[in-house]
Amino acid sequence: MEFLHDSPEDRSLQVMGQGVAAGEEVSNKQIIFREFAEGIPKESDMAVKSAQLKLKVPEGRPMAVLVRNLYLSCDPFMRLRMGPQMECCFPPFERGLPLVGFGVVQIVDSTHLDFEEGELLWGLTTWEEFSLLAEPFTDAYSLFKIKDLDLPLSYHIGLLGMPGLSAYIGFYEICSPKKGEYVFVSAAAGAIGHLVGQFAKLMGCYVVGSAGSKEKVDLLKNKLGFDDAFNHNDEVDFDAALKRRFPEGIDIYFDNVGGDMLDAVLLNMRLHGRIAMSGMVSQYNLEQHQGLRNLFCAVTRRVRMEGFMIADYFDRYPEFYEEMRRYLKEGKIVYVEDVVHGIEGAPAALIGLLTGQNVGKRVVAVAPDLIDVKRV
Amino acid sequence: MEFLHDSPEDRSLQVMGQGVAAGEEVSNKQIIFREFAEGIPKESDMAVKSAQLKLKVPEGRPMAVLVRNLYLSCDPFMRLRMGPQMECCFPPFERGLPLVGFGVVQIVDSTHLDFEEGELLWGLTTWEEFSLLAEPFTDAYSLFKIKDLDLPLSYHIGLLGMPGLSAYIGFYEICSPKKGEYVFVSAAAGAIGHLVGQFAKLMGCYVVGSAGSKEKVDLLKNKLGFDDAFNHNDEVDFDAALKRRFPEGIDIYFDNVGGDMLDAVLLNMRLHGRIAMSGMVSQYNLEQHQGLRNLFCAVTRRVRMEGFMIADYFDRYPEFYEEMRRYLKEGKIVYVEDVVHGIEGAPAALIGLLTGQNVGKRVVAVAPDLIDVKRV
Repeated sequence: MEFLHDSPEDRSLQVMGQGVAAGEEVSNKQIIFREFAEGIPKESDMAVKSAQLKLKVPEGRPMAVLVRNLYLSCDPFMRLRMGPQMECCFPPFERGLPLVGFGVVQIVDSTHLDFEEGELLWGLTTWEEFSLLAEPFTDAYSLFKIKDLDLPLSYHIGLLGMPGLSAYIGFYEICSPKKGEYVFVSAAAGAIGHLVGQFAKLMGCYVVGSAGSKEKVDLLKNKLGFDDAFNHNDEVDFDAALKRRFPEGIDIYFDNVGGDMLDAVLLNMRLHGRIAMSGMVSQYNLEQHQGLRNLFCAVTRRVRMEGFMIADYFDRYPEFYEEMRRYLKEGKIVYVEDVVHGIEGAPAALIGLLTGQNVGKRVVAVAPDLIDVKRV
Repeated sequence: MEFLHDSPEDRSLQVMGQGVAAGEEVSNKQIIFREFAEGIPKESDMAVKSAQLKLKVPEGRPMAVLVRNLYLSCDPFMRLRMGPQMECCFPPFERGLPLVGFGVVQIVDSTHLDFEEGELLWGLTTWEEFSLLAEPFTDAYSLFKIKDLDLPLSYHIGLLGMPGLSAYIGFYEICSPKKGEYVFVSAAAGAIGHLVGQFAKLMGCYVVGSAGSKEKVDLLKNKLGFDDAFNHNDEVDFDAALKRRFPEGIDIYFDNVGGDMLDAVLLNMRLHGRIAMSGMVSQYNLEQHQGLRNLFCAVTRRVRMEGFMIADYFDRYPEFYEEMRRYLKEGKIVYVEDVVHGIEGAPAALIGLLTGQNVGKRVVAVAPDLIDVKRV
């Protein structure tokens, strides 16, 4: 973990120490997707390559931007694109091309009417130092302009981006929380989980998190205000582990992991409980997903289980953004980032995320001349 | 199947050919729960016994009624009470005592301020010819007065009772249906399913049902207006069976069976689909429930899955009751009953229900002097 901010006031960002100029010829390092992963992805499933690139949108490409990638985001869902096509799932990455993920980018050259050189954006980009992005932008996710520069740029792929909006919509909308309810969050030290737990505390809930190491459990209990937390690797019986922490049962489960933990939670739901199904990272490295045997509990306990994706909620982004800024300014939430430096480290950073090595939001800082004065 | 009404107008009921009198001494046949069932229940798990009974609420029992059971209801959830206690589940029947289930009863004697001799009620009762029922009534289900006698009494444990209300709430509330949506119903020839399919047709949906015999499939397609139906016993690959019938996918799944069918449906849900989890009868005879491996589809497809029980919706009963009466009077729905005569046949009737032998709502007509003139 690179740093942990207890309050946002002590930080500011000075963007772009040295720039690059449109038209310049550069060497462009890329993270190429080579092979479908089996089980936990290996570094050899990806390759770091360099290619010469002229920083100019090619002739005859209207509505396109050539961007410099400043930060790339490591997200669990990317694993789903590293295997062969599965039913209900995202299309695989194309072998031989760079991986695709969220990033913070700066425009170097543009033929797009909405974007100008120098502008900072966040959205889906490709895993390389410089990307050519053209309409229609990938996967129906737009590129969003970053307007306020008083918060770190990288926050836009974390707290102020997909994970933040997932936590916000997932908790406040999908979970329909009420003060005093019992809330359980899995992958609670992850990008989404550590925010959900804090939102739940702000709402006056009792919050327990599960995570995969003592370090993470300590963070949850001592820095993030969780009422309790446990290391799932220390527990052989998730049902018993939950019953000890929730003798009254669970009203809300924010599920980031699926599998056996979800199955155990089902045994512990209270009447009219809600389960927000945000992701199932425990299953992504498996050839076949674990079977859930306790779904009948959702009938007798009248539980609502709901899958959601933020693509459906971008209309809520402005409201969410203002709320997050306010939370940060008022010191109401702590945002944890886990920064890896240099694009060469991106494959290992992503694999580490998929094996639970990250604490908080894992990002790759790509541009070496990017200076965040309070971070250096 | 005893009879199938295409419209309700051709029927009327003459209650109680010969009555019994309070204080009379009678022989009371009972269906005693003997042993926890393993797998499909056997008749020997139950016993038919007779005991002498004075038709009088015993001294010192206020707020009690002694009732004659006219109809007893065979419902899949009863299987859950025939095994040892499972987590999230109803308590087992007490061994040595009669089974408990819904019934239509007539009061023979009462010390209850709300109920008078001769009144007809429906609610939870015990599987015997005469029952002593006392406050607090079992399982938080009240006894409800039957006011209108222009419909068959037995309808109050079917169309106008728990199965009807389950279909009504489950479809109209939990499924949030819209005109033109693609609806799939399992156990579609059962008490709940055959109503759900008709509600969906009234709403202007495209409706497919699954059932366990050719006879049932024919009923769904030819008498109940389903757009299509299939015999799940003829299909080795439920996913393929669903893809053939729903090339565009499923918006609404009304789940009465759980297990492999639910798992296959998950592969075929459309974006923002809804699954009402009403029951999981395919699992009730199993020692361990089948594992569901496709729940992740509910994340990417943003599916809402919701368990419900009508105990939470009795405040909606008056509205529901009026609506059902209107549907019947206007000939908008067909209600299918499957009547077994005589309490001695109740164990076999229940076992038959649990192995899918019923068509429509299975009820046991208990009182031999009960005359429904249009039925004889």
